Amino acid sequence: MSSDKAAKRARFEGAWARIREELVAHVVSEGMPAEAVEWYGKNLDYNVPGGKLNRGMSVTDTAEILKGAPLDDAEYYKAAVLGWGVELLQAFFLVSDDIMDSSITRRGQPCWYRAPGVGMIAINDSFMLEAAIYFLLKKHFRGDACYVDLLELFHETTHQTELGQLIDLITADEVHVELDKFSLEKHRLIVIYKTAYYSFYLPVALAMYQSGVPASYTASGKTIEPYKTALSILLPLGEYFQIQDDFLDFSVPPEQLGKIGTDIVDNKCSWCVNIALAACTPAQRAVLDANYGRKDAEAEARVKAVFEEVGVREKYAAYEAEVYARLVAMIEAIPEGEGRGTLRREIFTSFLKKIYKRQK
Amino acid sequence: MSSDKAAKRARFEGAWARIREELVAHVVSEGMPAEAVEWYGKNLDYNVPGGKLNRGMSVTDTAEILKGAPLDDAEYYKAAVLGWGVELLQAFFLVSDDIMDSSITRRGQPCWYRAPGVGMIAINDSFMLEAAIYFLLKKHFRGDACYVDLLELFHETTHQTELGQLIDLITADEVHVELDKFSLEKHRLIVIYKTAYYSFYLPVALAMYQSGVPASYTASGKTIEPYKTALSILLPLGEYFQIQDDFLDFSVPPEQLGKIGTDIVDNKCSWCVNIALAACTPAQRAVLDANYGRKDAEAEARVKAVFEEVGVREKYAAYEAEVYARLVAMIEAIPEGEGRGTLRREIFTSFLKKIYKRQK
Repeated sequence: MSSDKAAKRARFEGAWARIREELVAHVVSEGMPAEAVEWYGKNLDYNVPGGKLNRGMSVTDTAEILKGAPLDDAEYYKAAVLGWGVELLQAFFLVSDDIMDSSITRRGQPCWYRAPGVGMIAINDSFMLEAAIYFLLKKHFRGDACYVDLLELFHETTHQTELGQLIDLITADEVHVELDKFSLEKHRLIVIYKTAYYSFYLPVALAMYQSGVPASYTASGKTIEPYKTALSILLPLGEYFQIQDDFLDFSVPPEQLGKIGTDIVDNKCSWCVNIALAACTPAQRAVLDANYGRKDAEAEARVKAVFEEVGVREKYAAYEAEVYARLVAMIEAIPEGEGRGTLRREIFTSFLKKIYKRQK
Repeated sequence: MSSDKAAKRARFEGAWARIREELVAHVVSEGMPAEAVEWYGKNLDYNVPGGKLNRGMSVTDTAEILKGAPLDDAEYYKAAVLGWGVELLQAFFLVSDDIMDSSITRRGQPCWYRAPGVGMIAINDSFMLEAAIYFLLKKHFRGDACYVDLLELFHETTHQTELGQLIDLITADEVHVELDKFSLEKHRLIVIYKTAYYSFYLPVALAMYQSGVPASYTASGKTIEPYKTALSILLPLGEYFQIQDDFLDFSVPPEQLGKIGTDIVDNKCSWCVNIALAACTPAQRAVLDANYGRKDAEAEARVKAVFEEVGVREKYAAYEAEVYARLVAMIEAIPEGEGRGTLRREIFTSFLKKIYKRQK
């Protein structure tokens, strides 16, 4: 990590230390017994701060781009509250997803529901992570013009993510493998709803609301609706990110990827299998039916062979070139230099730069 | 049920039919596949409308008392949306509580997580019941002056209920029975947080916001803070209701109660065991330690004998007389006849009438 990147992360983590104290102080002020306060603190420490923090830091990054100058401490802290709101939302989803998926580890430690003495209490703990968001929004944004917009954005993004999780859960059944349930269209829906809204649109839109970006303005003689513009770029960007993730899971060796790809044995509705299903011969389809979703290295190898035969690598390269060109064109179409409170291309190019042709 | 009561219930259920359609139509409009729409509809049908609906109907009842005249159809529907919001919140809690408590049945049918093909997907389904509340509030109250108050009230009540559930879960551990963890103080906290806020304060305060009751007004020369007044009555009222529930679980024979009391075998932090712990001799305490929370009819009988010996019945009668007099005095202290937008005693007396000396 560059020292610049490390310093940015340290500043964001510093805000968490303060936010964590505010959350615990609130539970103390409600008169909760010591063991409940302690439990709540552990829930926060175990589940919120240990991730990559890309989503949360997108809020402070975007707020700085929109200001066009470094944020002062008060501005930074408010943006960081929103950023940690995104991280709390993600923690709420991950704690509960791990139970639903019977996962074993997360971020290099046992999943919270598998930690000693926790078990199904983790469900209520996940709820409390979600509730923390609204406590923080009220405390820091109650008097601001954007307050209702922030509340509604969190509500709607939560709902969309839950819809994505629902489609995913009823599509990829680990017990009954049935490739007929898969399709590229369903893959797109799952990715957009389960990941893109909360990981890409939410952080940017939060920073836009905090920065006072209005619902519409006129630039270069055109009416711009900046939230719609942001959505129209960030949803395909999020889809691209996830398709890339699916492709790396299949194509990159574990020592380079930093983890072992398990989408094939886990019966995941991955982009790769959907591409293969769309392009395969009946004989190849029979191989996929017989081997996909089986906890067996030879079955996995047979699936990978079909992926190679139908040209998943070439199709991915073509997709990446096409989506990159499309996103660049959309970003270039944003009028710039309209002053404060208007969209900036750099918000989107900074995402695209991090993603394009990444290898892990 | 009287025909008046049946008609009231039918009107409230009629509003649900319309609300359900709004919720499903929203999921359709998001472009979800048919099987996800169908699943969501089943989640709503299975978990929301089948209860006693007391909490939800308290909203429409309170709104009518505050108006002092029958609600017109539009007013009724908006109050019913809030009432069904309370029922959705309760459904969110019950679906998840049943998983956390490993419950078997609920409202005479298998718990949702035990329904065929559901399992842990029920966790995400419970989230979607919560999310439905905020969709409905936005749709029906976005333009109203009370919108933010309604949002914050739902957020805060949700948080309080989760705190109550947390204390309850870490206090009553079915595996390690440890009566030292119990106390009347902890019982009070659990009851207030887990039940009283959402079952008693929430419905009344929602109706007050909808009816435009302000944060304060002057009556009989005094400054009244009506939400604080309502809270100061409804929390002890909710505590009374739950203490009564605990007492009926112990004291009323199953054929009269309509269900079998299981608090003793389930190691519940019930009012009765806390009263017994506070009043027992060392010998009686040894009996409680050896027999409480055991799935064994003879052990349960030995606990019940100690409850009788320490005088739980008499102590309950004394408590009920005391709390009733206290609540009546608080209600009578509310100034009345101040016109629209002010508190009415009948809101509270109608609750008290339903609860006082009930036998099931």
